[in-house]
Amino acid sequence: MRQILSGTMASRGMTLGRARLVQPSRYLVDTRPLTEEEVASELEHLHAALDTARQELRELRGKLHGALAREVNEFIDAHALLLDDAELLRGLDEMITIGRYRAGAALKKQRDRLAGVFAAMDDPYLRSRMEDVDQVIGRVISALQRQTSAEERKLAARVGEILVADTLAPADMAHLAGNGLLGVITSSGSPYSHSAILARSLSLPMLVGTRDALSTIHDDDLILLDTERGEAVVHPTAQDLAHYRSWQREAAAEGRRLASLANAPTRTRDGIDVRLLANAESASDVALARSRGADGIGLYRTEFLFLRHKGLPSEDEQFIAYRDVVLGMGGAPVTIRTLDLGADKADAAGLVIRGEENPALGVRGVRLSLRHPAVFTTQIRAILRAACYGPVRVLVPMVTQPDELIAVRTLFKLARQELKRENIDLPEKLALGAMIEVPAAAINVRALLEYSDFLAIGTNDLAQYVLAADRGNDALENIYNPLQPALLRLLSHVISAGRRAGKPVSLCGEIGGDVSFTALLLALGLNEFSMHPSKILHVRDRLATLDHALLRSQAPKLIRARTHEEAEALLTSITGCQHADIDL
Amino acid sequence: MRQILSGTMASRGMTLGRARLVQPSRYLVDTRPLTEEEVASELEHLHAALDTARQELRELRGKLHGALAREVNEFIDAHALLLDDAELLRGLDEMITIGRYRAGAALKKQRDRLAGVFAAMDDPYLRSRMEDVDQVIGRVISALQRQTSAEERKLAARVGEILVADTLAPADMAHLAGNGLLGVITSSGSPYSHSAILARSLSLPMLVGTRDALSTIHDDDLILLDTERGEAVVHPTAQDLAHYRSWQREAAAEGRRLASLANAPTRTRDGIDVRLLANAESASDVALARSRGADGIGLYRTEFLFLRHKGLPSEDEQFIAYRDVVLGMGGAPVTIRTLDLGADKADAAGLVIRGEENPALGVRGVRLSLRHPAVFTTQIRAILRAACYGPVRVLVPMVTQPDELIAVRTLFKLARQELKRENIDLPEKLALGAMIEVPAAAINVRALLEYSDFLAIGTNDLAQYVLAADRGNDALENIYNPLQPALLRLLSHVISAGRRAGKPVSLCGEIGGDVSFTALLLALGLNEFSMHPSKILHVRDRLATLDHALLRSQAPKLIRARTHEEAEALLTSITGCQHADIDL
Repeated sequence: MRQILSGTMASRGMTLGRARLVQPSRYLVDTRPLTEEEVASELEHLHAALDTARQELRELRGKLHGALAREVNEFIDAHALLLDDAELLRGLDEMITIGRYRAGAALKKQRDRLAGVFAAMDDPYLRSRMEDVDQVIGRVISALQRQTSAEERKLAARVGEILVADTLAPADMAHLAGNGLLGVITSSGSPYSHSAILARSLSLPMLVGTRDALSTIHDDDLILLDTERGEAVVHPTAQDLAHYRSWQREAAAEGRRLASLANAPTRTRDGIDVRLLANAESASDVALARSRGADGIGLYRTEFLFLRHKGLPSEDEQFIAYRDVVLGMGGAPVTIRTLDLGADKADAAGLVIRGEENPALGVRGVRLSLRHPAVFTTQIRAILRAACYGPVRVLVPMVTQPDELIAVRTLFKLARQELKRENIDLPEKLALGAMIEVPAAAINVRALLEYSDFLAIGTNDLAQYVLAADRGNDALENIYNPLQPALLRLLSHVISAGRRAGKPVSLCGEIGGDVSFTALLLALGLNEFSMHPSKILHVRDRLATLDHALLRSQAPKLIRARTHEEAEALLTSITGCQHADIDL
Repeated sequence: MRQILSGTMASRGMTLGRARLVQPSRYLVDTRPLTEEEVASELEHLHAALDTARQELRELRGKLHGALAREVNEFIDAHALLLDDAELLRGLDEMITIGRYRAGAALKKQRDRLAGVFAAMDDPYLRSRMEDVDQVIGRVISALQRQTSAEERKLAARVGEILVADTLAPADMAHLAGNGLLGVITSSGSPYSHSAILARSLSLPMLVGTRDALSTIHDDDLILLDTERGEAVVHPTAQDLAHYRSWQREAAAEGRRLASLANAPTRTRDGIDVRLLANAESASDVALARSRGADGIGLYRTEFLFLRHKGLPSEDEQFIAYRDVVLGMGGAPVTIRTLDLGADKADAAGLVIRGEENPALGVRGVRLSLRHPAVFTTQIRAILRAACYGPVRVLVPMVTQPDELIAVRTLFKLARQELKRENIDLPEKLALGAMIEVPAAAINVRALLEYSDFLAIGTNDLAQYVLAADRGNDALENIYNPLQPALLRLLSHVISAGRRAGKPVSLCGEIGGDVSFTALLLALGLNEFSMHPSKILHVRDRLATLDHALLRSQAPKLIRARTHEEAEALLTSITGCQHADIDL
């Protein structure tokens, strides 16, 4: 019998599939007290289970590639940090050694204690942290249970299934999405949770807060998930299916229309050409970039080589990776960003300084590379060798002052001399550019332009520094807004300075690929956008509807806005379309 | 017999005193393995010692007041964090439960393991972290030894003594300085260590890296410590003492000359009046401010009320604290800053969000206050009541956008209505100002001026955000520089905007009280300086030597500088005096 369950949209989309239920970890634990003799072995069980959970997270990290890995790793790191939380671990040890609890019971008790603390707080950010705690403790309990039952961790989903669960850890979601999962329905959770953010970036339809999902839905029930309506229809009728088919037809038509743009020029309504570049870090990103008619790679991230390996990648490994991207782009320019690690990232190579109080304000990007000149030189040599196979530009992250660019240029010069002595092929002069993401670099951009052949603005970090608001901190969403006047003025300042110096300026933050901001960026004078390759057709489509001259004439008004609300209202009145605050 | 020991100046000064040796914790530990029965009680010993160490740090924190507390607490927090380090604790527990080590032996082994890791690194920042590890583990071992020997922790120094040690923890230094310690000689350590920074801010002469100090010097030896020469003279001769007396006479004369400035007007050489305000957070700061002829309190910090208590301070407690400052200043204006807590601070009241990845970019200052409107309103009521006793201004920290000021003004309005209904005395209109420390606030300062009666620039935080460089991170000292052109331009922009709006602008970062920057700030148009009251006479003295008109004419050149080196060279050529990079 048809039934409708209501929930909250966490990720937009409509899909039809079979239900696959995952009952929440039941926390069925043995509550008999330990005898004195059992304490030591119980401690071992606990720490083995903790290690298993850590290992699972590491393995999940190893399975993820491409742009996705970047985002998911952040969540995995948050969970890994919880597993190493001193207070939690000490509490567990004490409950076993002193309180004589069994490991499972100790975990459950800690979980309940934390839940009590979180329950007293009325705040979406903190609630999403409790989900993390639940997911992590659930993972440890599950590992503990498998020690005795030799049962496999059950979180598989087959192609064509919609997962129904209480909550879903981001790491598991990423894994399942790769196995063909169609959608997710959770009985608790919020659209601000880590999983919800991830579902959006995976374009995986997700409904959260669907209260009775676990008691109403059964395994293999047919489900029509329509998150825009906030509905999961169990046992859909013929009429429901007709509605779904018509939605599918529309979506397919829109897809075909977009696909037809793959080989179209990128041009505004009034005939101004714009360059669309791709952000990439994998072969599939490069393939997608070519198929979407990207004008080049605007940001090739090299961190994955350093995160994936045990130890440092060799010069040859790097050379081959870079050369293959250059070959893959068949003559279109490739912008290779030098290593952008910091204390916020996992670091197999052991380069970063651990324990920085504020890793975002720490030794990262070029600051870190310059502390390891031998490691940096290996990367530089690999880039120089790859640049013999096609046009390459080098982008330096986290530049603050001219000194740093001078040092990088010196290292390039030395590496060239070395390679020449070794009789290795060398490219012509390579363009070297600064990534503008530190406010000081944006303000003092003219000094940096003396040592830069081009610029790339990294709006994600620039915004977080200008606003002193961590972009990963959900509690600051009322502040972290790309339309903040201070940010608009810096963008305008950098773009104008680049134009006056006759040097190209691109932008490779998230807003570059978000069509809600295309008109804004055009108004500010940007004519090189870099984005995830999956966004290229949408932006090209959007650009064709925009009038460049009209938008440019509005720039002075936009950058004079006093608040982000004012800037948004202005932008809406100019483009005549509403901009949604959170693009679900 | 006279002997001279050489070391490196960590804090400037000359002093004569008796030596007091502290031999390094000998790490004499029992290495016999535990029997199975002893494991549980040994774990208890370890955790009791850890708790004692934690308790000692808490007590030291409780003993410190005034501006000093702010700085030392940072170091204490670093040590407290080490005591809670998950990896360290788990390692210790495992060594006891599995490896059957006694607690002392486990601590020593962990210490040696970490020393091995740090020794492999050639970096002053990391070396100073090893000092922290040593000091913390030494504290725990000492606590462990006292469990059995009932011996008191020996780190007393009497008035008139110079401490000779291997290293000295900042918390201990702060405590000893309060007991009349004259100077410090350490056999290891660097001028970049936490202790060295603290010694400078305590004006406590300190010599580090004095290799043979512990083997050469004996308890009660007379020592002439002359850090400027990098020397400790053991058994000084009559000639040494004559040199010391002449130094003392010069220092006293300079002191008298400065003291005569206490009631002098603050005026540049060409007769321009400048206002000097005091940063304060204790009664002694206020007393000092008055005795130095401060024109008012430019920054009264209120955090101490929230850190010192268990739980939240009541309205009456706050009212009395604020009123006493107002009374203490006898009619000169007092600028009360509303609560400026964040996740980087200890927080007895439990207000802050724990576990932020980047606390400096998190929920702090007004962001935090607005999340706790009831707590904030209590503070606002206390301020309104105190303002009946003299002129009060209210300063709002971490403002990013006009919204926040509007919200604060609304809360003030509501509190006034409440107090009126309760028939409580109300002051006339209170001036409300924004602290400018977020880059967006500096860039968009005109929008904030619409809702501000005055501004106060917080250069410490502003610099760290503009440069994306944590000011507590020693590894970034080549970037964190107040002469960075981007910072100079923002300062100039904010000061000019204030002047055009006819609203006062003060500056209350560290550079406000550093005479090396007085000419610079005058050049940028600043005419209200706020600083630690101990700096007021020095800045007044410096101002009298400076030509305002000449400096102002150089401003355009200064803010056009492309690098901080260029700005420094320019400043030097204008003022004709060398500016030392680190003011030891």
